Amino acid sequence: MIIIAEKINGTRKAVKEAVMARDTAFITKLTLEQAEAGAHYIDINAGTSPDRETEDMLWLIDIVQGLTELPICIDSSSPKTLAAALDHVTHLPMVNSINADPHRLEAFLPLISDRGCPVVALSLDESKSGMPKSTEERMGNIARIVEATRAAGITDDRLFIDPLIMSVSTDTNAGLESLECIRLTRETYPDAHITGGLSNISFGLPNRELVNRTFFALAMMQGMDSAICNPGNISLIESMKATDMLLGRDRFCRAYTTAAKDGFTKI
Amino acid sequence: MIIIAEKINGTRKAVKEAVMARDTAFITKLTLEQAEAGAHYIDINAGTSPDRETEDMLWLIDIVQGLTELPICIDSSSPKTLAAALDHVTHLPMVNSINADPHRLEAFLPLISDRGCPVVALSLDESKSGMPKSTEERMGNIARIVEATRAAGITDDRLFIDPLIMSVSTDTNAGLESLECIRLTRETYPDAHITGGLSNISFGLPNRELVNRTFFALAMMQGMDSAICNPGNISLIESMKATDMLLGRDRFCRAYTTAAKDGFTKI
Repeated sequence: MIIIAEKINGTRKAVKEAVMARDTAFITKLTLEQAEAGAHYIDINAGTSPDRETEDMLWLIDIVQGLTELPICIDSSSPKTLAAALDHVTHLPMVNSINADPHRLEAFLPLISDRGCPVVALSLDESKSGMPKSTEERMGNIARIVEATRAAGITDDRLFIDPLIMSVSTDTNAGLESLECIRLTRETYPDAHITGGLSNISFGLPNRELVNRTFFALAMMQGMDSAICNPGNISLIESMKATDMLLGRDRFCRAYTTAAKDGFTKI
Repeated sequence: MIIIAEKINGTRKAVKEAVMARDTAFITKLTLEQAEAGAHYIDINAGTSPDRETEDMLWLIDIVQGLTELPICIDSSSPKTLAAALDHVTHLPMVNSINADPHRLEAFLPLISDRGCPVVALSLDESKSGMPKSTEERMGNIARIVEATRAAGITDDRLFIDPLIMSVSTDTNAGLESLECIRLTRETYPDAHITGGLSNISFGLPNRELVNRTFFALAMMQGMDSAICNPGNISLIESMKATDMLLGRDRFCRAYTTAAKDGFTKI
């Protein structure tokens, strides 16, 4: 399970304020917490306006790189910010994200392909309106992305396909559709990774952690092998360790029993 | 989800002591707790020696029937005890259990078939030594049971097939094999119910409730629609309600949000 730590995201109010105020201590805290919990990538999304996004991204990268050897996941929709960030990082980063929009693919793929970066691929087409309405539409978007990435020389094992997990409170079938999309993606692209923002599933519901942890287990069984989440979330780590064990991936239950001794505080 | 409440079982020390001492208050407490939590069947296993099992079973049935309208699940391997219990109950009971042992089938099916009782069918063959070693062996046992029950006029929807969930701590693949057995059973016998003792999966491990709740979610996705468990176990109810919702079976999330309001204390 490859965990992309989600907390340094300027679309969250506290992070945006910290970015605007150049609050190094706040970003340091988020970085260290996520690194110590065992994250594999630290996502950085400046979340600020286009005129300053690049500058803010580089400031954030400097803080994170000064604290940890962990690779960064550059989270931006701007080719300019992405290009600057790619030149600035010291370890091979992940790129977040591409989608089936031809303009996005045209702008991003040349920056990504030769560097060998892994890349998050969202199962939507930004050039069309709104989110995909069905599993078929998602799978169609993924097929168009994979056609483009393969043509650009990006092997499937560099893709982190995101089925775009939506809230079950606004659509009764949202969970089922995500799970079906994950199953089909695993079957169709066996070498690709499958990731996603787990907490979306529980938006608008009580006891959100319960919904997230339960969905995580089901998604892992369908083939999800990565998540964009808070790596310090104990209930998710519990669910991950138990599911790995129940799916026969934890010989003699060693990883599970070790994690239990640590109170499930480490991935 | 059909919940068979497991607590009145004389193989548990406290229950056996209560049976031997005719401690009506203790059995009353177990009955009411399980009924109030929303159990669908109250399992009764006297757990005493053959010379007194029938008498103890009838004593237990009298207490339970005096307290609740819920049907009883008669849990005995003795045809004599089963026959006496079947004559004693006032509501159509479930019978626990048959297996692929020809002698058991021969003794039990005549008692069950005409009465219309549902019956728990274990995926083992008691006439052979030990537990089934593989999914194939389990499926073979189930096939032999279904052949016999169909021949006896018992429709598949009266069967509660039990894949015999084993501890993952003694066999790394035990979880995976149970899940595969559940999937194959659901596929092969779409009208049958699938049940099982959930807590076996976590025997010998720390944080057992975590393992049980996680396994329950995975098993439900594979097609399990019943469980033999403690209906007052909040973590299992949490898992059940969240999984039903995530699998698209809870329109507008009503059952989930209602259960959340009650603190997941009711099935």
